[in-house]
Formats: sequence, C-alpha cells, structure tokens
Amino acid sequence: MPILLEKSQIDERLSQLEGWARQGQAAIEKSYVFADFKAAMRFVNQVAEAAEKVDHHPDILINYNKVKLTLSTHSEGGLTHKDFDLARDVDFI
Amino acid sequence: MPILLEKSQIDERLSQLEGWARQGQAAIEKSYVFADFKAAMRFVNQVAEAAEKVDHHPDILINYNKVKLTLSTHSEGGLTHKDFDLARDVDFI
Repeated sequence: MPILLEKSQIDERLSQLEGWARQGQAAIEKSYVFADFKAAMRFVNQVAEAAEKVDHHPDILINYNKVKLTLSTHSEGGLTHKDFDLARDVDFI
Repeated sequence: MPILLEKSQIDERLSQLEGWARQGQAAIEKSYVFADFKAAMRFVNQVAEAAEKVDHHPDILINYNKVKLTLSTHSEGGLTHKDFDLARDVDFI
C-alpha cells in the first residue's frame, strides 16, 4: 500500500520535476500545450498507456490542443510516490 | 459561420438528446461511466475521431472510468447547431 508523503518529501520530489505544481493538499498537476487536437490526443494515449502499465491513472482534461493532468492517490487521500513516479514517466513521453 | 441558437431552439434540440444538460449559458455537457479506464479511453478516441471529422471539439475530462464531455461553440460564445450535431453523433458511438 502506498504511503502518504510528508511535506518535505513532496517538496523534494516536486523539485526534481519540470512544470508540475501542487493543486491543493492532495494533488499535483501540469498543463501541456500541443500543436493541435490530434497531437494532444496522441499524448493522451501515451499517458494512458503509461498509466495502465503502473495501474495508476491521472485525471485528464483535454481542451483542444491543451491537456491538463492531475495526479493524486485517491485511495490514500493524498500524494504518494506513485504520483511522482507517474509524473516522471509522463515527462519522458 | 454557425449562428447562436435561441433558447427555444436549444430546448428543442436538448429534448431530442438523452442525458445532455445545459452547463451555464454557453455549453452543454454529459457524463458517461464505463467498466474501466481502458473502456473510457476507447470511447474518448471514438469521440476524438468524430470531433476531427467535423472540426468541432468537446472539452473532455477523464476520471478513470468516467468521461465528461462539454460542448460549446467558443468562436460564437455560445451554443450552435454544431454542438448539438456533435452531441448526437457522439451518442451514436
């Protein structure tokens, strides 16, 4: 079972990522801009594949060429290493 | 250029759809529930294809097995036949 991270751990893992920010107490989010809707959808499908692989799923909001990902470990009610591991995976896409 | 619909036209077109509701003055939305994330993503990709075909794109929010579509004609600042035509197309998926 994933363990909720302390604030200092969250700050440390956030500092290793580019463009991710806290959203409230229990989530992190990042927004991406693509050339068009097709490019945004290609990214979303790659995110979906990465998410399925680790069985951890971000909320995904698509507005034409913009995609916002929100990560939280709902079962624990906050942020765990699963969130930051997937954020890192997604940024390798 | 699509023309903004009058309230009576919006009511009429809404009455021909199942599960769509107004969201504020300028949009309609519908939420769908699927068996799992994979099924939700399959639906989203079909929606994306339908959207590309008519060059009109809903906002798409994916929360694991739930998908919320929001339709609005942003260029006109409100609802047009394009929104209701795509809503109808999507419900044929």
